[in-house]
Amino acid sequence: MHAIVMAGGSGTRFWPASRERMPKQFLKITSDRTLFEETLDRIKPLVADDRVYAVVNRLHEETTRRLAGSARVLIEPVGKNTAPCIGLAAIHIAREDENSPIIVLPADHFIADSDRFALKLRAACEAAKRGAIVTLGIPPTRPETGYGYIERGDETEKAMGEEVFEVRKFVEKPDLETAVEYLRGGRHLWNSGIFIFTAKTILAEIRYHLPDLREGLEEIGEAIGSDNYAEAVERVYPRLKSVSIDYGVMEKTSARVQVLRGDFGWSDVGSWEALYELRSDRYDESENLLLSEAMTIDAKGNLVYSTTDRAIALLGVEGLVIVDTPDAVMIARKERSQDVKKFPEKFKAASRLELS
Amino acid sequence: MHAIVMAGGSGTRFWPASRERMPKQFLKITSDRTLFEETLDRIKPLVADDRVYAVVNRLHEETTRRLAGSARVLIEPVGKNTAPCIGLAAIHIAREDENSPIIVLPADHFIADSDRFALKLRAACEAAKRGAIVTLGIPPTRPETGYGYIERGDETEKAMGEEVFEVRKFVEKPDLETAVEYLRGGRHLWNSGIFIFTAKTILAEIRYHLPDLREGLEEIGEAIGSDNYAEAVERVYPRLKSVSIDYGVMEKTSARVQVLRGDFGWSDVGSWEALYELRSDRYDESENLLLSEAMTIDAKGNLVYSTTDRAIALLGVEGLVIVDTPDAVMIARKERSQDVKKFPEKFKAASRLELS
Repeated sequence: MHAIVMAGGSGTRFWPASRERMPKQFLKITSDRTLFEETLDRIKPLVADDRVYAVVNRLHEETTRRLAGSARVLIEPVGKNTAPCIGLAAIHIAREDENSPIIVLPADHFIADSDRFALKLRAACEAAKRGAIVTLGIPPTRPETGYGYIERGDETEKAMGEEVFEVRKFVEKPDLETAVEYLRGGRHLWNSGIFIFTAKTILAEIRYHLPDLREGLEEIGEAIGSDNYAEAVERVYPRLKSVSIDYGVMEKTSARVQVLRGDFGWSDVGSWEALYELRSDRYDESENLLLSEAMTIDAKGNLVYSTTDRAIALLGVEGLVIVDTPDAVMIARKERSQDVKKFPEKFKAASRLELS
Repeated sequence: MHAIVMAGGSGTRFWPASRERMPKQFLKITSDRTLFEETLDRIKPLVADDRVYAVVNRLHEETTRRLAGSARVLIEPVGKNTAPCIGLAAIHIAREDENSPIIVLPADHFIADSDRFALKLRAACEAAKRGAIVTLGIPPTRPETGYGYIERGDETEKAMGEEVFEVRKFVEKPDLETAVEYLRGGRHLWNSGIFIFTAKTILAEIRYHLPDLREGLEEIGEAIGSDNYAEAVERVYPRLKSVSIDYGVMEKTSARVQVLRGDFGWSDVGSWEALYELRSDRYDESENLLLSEAMTIDAKGNLVYSTTDRAIALLGVEGLVIVDTPDAVMIARKERSQDVKKFPEKFKAASRLELS
């Protein structure tokens, strides 16, 4: 078994803790380890370390190598969305074994139940070995309009005792009315961005649906193992079209696509507010989530996160997100977390790049 | 003319900007100069620099000397409230001229109209030269229970064209009901802590009403100008009883006590909220008082003060006080400003003295 850990995330939603140079996967927000390390830990029982490929932007090479242990690190000179990222790793893996299942997963998600997660992945690998593209779909808990959905068909088969459904359709982010229908209907699952397939399967799909990408990957593939590899990536990769695996392959493929229910407690930790909801186990008696030490007087339902050792004191405030870093401090209403990304944009516009 | 600037304030109400080592008078909160400097500036038209005596705690000697220019600096080994402080400066001044009026004023107040303030002081000095103890009483604008009051009698005379009233009584902080009566009655003024008298007058009062203090001051007075002065202060001052000039003299004296209306726009800047109210001229279009730069999105009615160069970002928050310092950041609801002083207490209790 192999794994591709996609660590190309950006740094805007968890500003000011996250920055362009310090994206979310390198933050210690869900535990005392970074999301990236947690992702590696989670697949350890399934995949040998040296069969894990972390694909990262050049900006984050150093941090990634420091945290990656024995995992391999592949560098993207520029981010080109998930299809080129997966393609790049797949041509490396194909040289080792094109028929073993590859687990593809984002580096910055949260999974509550790691054991159940591993169980589902084992079942998915079983299905992938039979040639299918397999995905894990998350049972929706709210009419979310920020995710893509997967419409499942009827049960087709079992893999290691787990139900495996046929996928009818990948659908893009719906409007609220549609999302409500999806939630009621019970046939739609959130697209988690976690896929399982063999190198042979996915490269065949890329060959068919993304011929330009295929050509680029072939050019890079010929250089693997030679002194020209870095130069080839440098030359080819920036020219590739930016496209997601969902749009580029999943929504178009006529291959067999299957889905398992990802009922292991999942979150893409998409905002400070999402993080707050996620970690209710850590609330103090006033429902404050103090990920860093703070002195509170009559403070309720706040989230405090700090990367400094400064004292943080809260008096009478409710429902705030307070994030303290060496060069910036943010105070936001928790329910406005979606707008946090405006700050790095504004600082960038003001040419204060270190703050973006 | 002489002046005594009482700079013995503590550092709890403007925490974390103010600390034990950095009391309010050294903050730049009402302008780009410290309150202490503003106080000195305000009396410059009236008193020659070298006739100004700043009385400060030893902790603040260095800062005071740096800001005091040609003013003299007298050190208190420990704070003993206003009677010993005024007495100490008065024995120094008495050696120069016991019949010239002394303006006594706290170092950490705000005055809106400096010209009018100077005018009132000139008139008060005129009255003081005739032997009276004179004070400036502030026309109350709310039923404040945190101040002492002065009940005035009928008009007695004019000094430089200004009305000078007889004082009937000094009264301590009233309850709300009484404060409301005072406000309605129109005969009560806030005790500003600003007094004008000659050295001769106040030392006679101290001699009569505070005999222990008199003895101590005489012992120190004998050492003035000798090599033993510092040692004498060190020996005598800590033994003095802590007592305010209001309680120790004003409430008991049978001397002539007079009051002028302090109608020059006054505030003792008693809290972050008071500061916010005071500086409405500096509000941005959303009524934020940004004493330091901040990036705001949908933020209203907040006060931001920083002594660092870190970026401060506010999103969707209202009515907060945000204070950023190198080792502590505070986020408080503005209307809870009176409780800010609990933080230095708590940090002291936790043996984190640098934060108290």
